[in-house]
Amino acid sequence: MEQEIKGKVYKFGDNINSDIIIAGRYLIYIEPDKLAEHAFEMLGENFGSKLRDFQILVAGRNFGCGSAREQAVTAIQGLGIKAVVASSFARTFYRNAINSGLPIVECPELSEVVNEGDEISIDLSAGEIRHKGAQYLFPKFPASMQQLLECGGLAEYLKAQVK
Amino acid sequence: MEQEIKGKVYKFGDNINSDIIIAGRYLIYIEPDKLAEHAFEMLGENFGSKLRDFQILVAGRNFGCGSAREQAVTAIQGLGIKAVVASSFARTFYRNAINSGLPIVECPELSEVVNEGDEISIDLSAGEIRHKGAQYLFPKFPASMQQLLECGGLAEYLKAQVK
Repeated sequence: MEQEIKGKVYKFGDNINSDIIIAGRYLIYIEPDKLAEHAFEMLGENFGSKLRDFQILVAGRNFGCGSAREQAVTAIQGLGIKAVVASSFARTFYRNAINSGLPIVECPELSEVVNEGDEISIDLSAGEIRHKGAQYLFPKFPASMQQLLECGGLAEYLKAQVK
Repeated sequence: MEQEIKGKVYKFGDNINSDIIIAGRYLIYIEPDKLAEHAFEMLGENFGSKLRDFQILVAGRNFGCGSAREQAVTAIQGLGIKAVVASSFARTFYRNAINSGLPIVECPELSEVVNEGDEISIDLSAGEIRHKGAQYLFPKFPASMQQLLECGGLAEYLKAQVK
């Protein structure tokens, strides 16, 4: 996982639930590519492919609420999204993201000021987001979670431990 | 209300709920313009304004589910949408639409074949949708509902009755 994540923002509002991210009927899949094909499908048939032009999702409150499903994280990763920043996350989505190696950051100040298409840069080790010359701080991950992210998620971390 | 409604389609998937259409915090408004400003806001800051390029929404199953709110219909009307076609509608949304004078049509066959940007034509009195040379039939409205739609909704119908 890169310590510095740069990219163009797509901005959602509040309460984007896991059914919007990936509908329940696709939970038979676990492959990122397969899930990405159907990610955000209910929002329009080309919605998912339009998101491929963006590298970072920014959202309002409670991103990932609703039914807990790790495929919601995998689907987002399958679209090529490198990180998600939100005012707040649903708890299960938050932990699923760390376990699957997707960096996610709670930063309400950024959510308020960023616009669609803006470029931002997230420095995970410094706990800092840069946007239009301004800096927005967020609490750094504890060392253990940082380590999970660096390994690419819980499964990869455990594999490394076994070795 | 026009008997023949023509326009370009934006296509949603299943289970678009009323919170997606207009978030609860905007229910303090009743004006179509004001509601339209915030319609579909959670899906992206420019999502609503992009929908203004389309005249007809087509969706999958259960459009308008979730919390019953007539503002969901008003918000869609405020965007300039002339009709909604879906595989099925949530009951309260269906009746709210008729009461507010928004023509809505259940036609699962059309939902399956239509793509974003396609032009379709809905003939309400004939119970027929035309799309790429094909015709898709739907049950015509009963006379009483047809009359409500023609008046522009329940309030206008009652006003006319009083006169």
